[in-house]
Amino acid sequence: MTLSDITLPIKNELREFDKFFDEQLKTNISLLNLVLRYLTSKKGKQIRPIMVFLSAKISGGINKRTFIGASLVELLHTATLIHDDVVDEASERRGIASINAKWNNKIAVLIGDFLLSKGLLISVENKEFDFLEVTTKAVKRMSEGELLSIDKSKRYDLDEEKYFQVISDKTASLIATCCKIGAISATNDTNVQNALEKYGENIGIAFQIRDDIFDYISKSSLIGKPVGNDIKEKKITLPLLYALKNNPDDANTIIKMIKKGKLQKNEIKYIIDFVIQKKGIEYAENKAIEYVNKAKNVLDIFPDTEEKKSLINFADFVIIRNS
Amino acid sequence: MTLSDITLPIKNELREFDKFFDEQLKTNISLLNLVLRYLTSKKGKQIRPIMVFLSAKISGGINKRTFIGASLVELLHTATLIHDDVVDEASERRGIASINAKWNNKIAVLIGDFLLSKGLLISVENKEFDFLEVTTKAVKRMSEGELLSIDKSKRYDLDEEKYFQVISDKTASLIATCCKIGAISATNDTNVQNALEKYGENIGIAFQIRDDIFDYISKSSLIGKPVGNDIKEKKITLPLLYALKNNPDDANTIIKMIKKGKLQKNEIKYIIDFVIQKKGIEYAENKAIEYVNKAKNVLDIFPDTEEKKSLINFADFVIIRNS
Repeated sequence: MTLSDITLPIKNELREFDKFFDEQLKTNISLLNLVLRYLTSKKGKQIRPIMVFLSAKISGGINKRTFIGASLVELLHTATLIHDDVVDEASERRGIASINAKWNNKIAVLIGDFLLSKGLLISVENKEFDFLEVTTKAVKRMSEGELLSIDKSKRYDLDEEKYFQVISDKTASLIATCCKIGAISATNDTNVQNALEKYGENIGIAFQIRDDIFDYISKSSLIGKPVGNDIKEKKITLPLLYALKNNPDDANTIIKMIKKGKLQKNEIKYIIDFVIQKKGIEYAENKAIEYVNKAKNVLDIFPDTEEKKSLINFADFVIIRNS
Repeated sequence: MTLSDITLPIKNELREFDKFFDEQLKTNISLLNLVLRYLTSKKGKQIRPIMVFLSAKISGGINKRTFIGASLVELLHTATLIHDDVVDEASERRGIASINAKWNNKIAVLIGDFLLSKGLLISVENKEFDFLEVTTKAVKRMSEGELLSIDKSKRYDLDEEKYFQVISDKTASLIATCCKIGAISATNDTNVQNALEKYGENIGIAFQIRDDIFDYISKSSLIGKPVGNDIKEKKITLPLLYALKNNPDDANTIIKMIKKGKLQKNEIKYIIDFVIQKKGIEYAENKAIEYVNKAKNVLDIFPDTEEKKSLINFADFVIIRNS
């Protein structure tokens, strides 16, 4: 199953959206146009607009409001990525030089601000205040989640409950927002809106668990970042959390290792082997499957349609993807 | 005349606002609380809340909505400053270490995002959609103004018309927004709202011209940045623009000097002396006074009150301030 199978029921709308999105980004400032053209030359997987469109379709049908909602989340997401690249001093994004690398930090931050305000403005101008409410809440949760994660990793006192809070806020909140916005654009039925929000939240959690697993087992060429990256940054994720909890003797050694400063290559390998041996990967994989199933169950209220099939397939895609 | 004279008619409300503002910023995340407490320990001049409160008072009276509007602009302004410090790699702000210096870039960007979304959320939750509309437009104008300024300085083709567009968008838009939000909080009369917006726009332009003059004549200790900073960054502002336009022969030499790369100390001194000799400072000062008078004239529609007096005094304060 590929993403293009999943997006089959919304193929035409996604193509229309591409044009709609690029149209929004025309300005009178030549530098801004130059950067925006560069930016839109390489589209990402567009997971977020896909979620908006599928959710709208299953909730009653895609319409003008759906396009506005999809623009809002995609603009917000793009702004976040550009700012992330500044913070992480990343030199590449989607296989081409990042904005900060090709231009500079100042231009990258300003372009991010422009895209964010553009997204908000499109919603304000179309009086889509519900979109604004769910989106703003998500942005707040995203920054809180990241800050909680940094806080916990500084004090080495993360537990499974806090781990799930962090990934819900950091990652799942925006996916949940996409699904809710899609639903809002198509129906006033709050049961439907809440169901799709819940679907998105569960998908988002599974997605992040899968990402955290990649850090232990992926081939670096597939995911684009080397194995052991999280642990190098002292980020303790679910696979390691599980292994530590069930092996308190080893846990002491490992926590000491992480606390003492920069990890050596052999120490990283030691921790990765420990996680694999103590079945941290299996545990995390099972948890991801659990959340995927929760997401699918939420869809029981909908009749069987091709868009429902796509949402179910997307749930599976989240954990079987290999990049 | 000092700022505390100007704020006399809203003294109690400003004190109440301090509490209201800090109250908004309590969270469950200890790292976030730590940074926010640090941040609110040193308040700035609070120009923006002052503008909101005076505008509300002259438009009919300060109320709960005024507090929400003032929080929105102050949160937005604070977020912008924190992000600016990341981009400029600034190590100090308001006499204490900047967030990026005391913590790091990542935390600074996240705190900025948190404050921005918090401001938007307060407005959304209180259904202040008009506030959102004017604010979002201002944010878009601010990023566009900065980008236009970079674009023009790269191509050395700024003229007076573009200079005024840049400073209107970059600086005046947020001051205009503060005044408009204050008015919106107190009256539905769009004449009053538009008048105060115009007052703010003119004040903002005068404010930025004054800032640009400082770069040529201030004592570095007063303004907190060394003289000649703009020109070092190849930023051509009104005093130099005027001197260049009226002295085409010298203009050639100077543009060549700026284009060729990093300016030497003696070259910076040469350009500053040129601007002073060719009366660029006087010209800019007169322009600033022109805009201050435009701002004052807008206030003619209001009866004479102490808050009107304060707004008039504030207009003068903008150009007589020495930091």
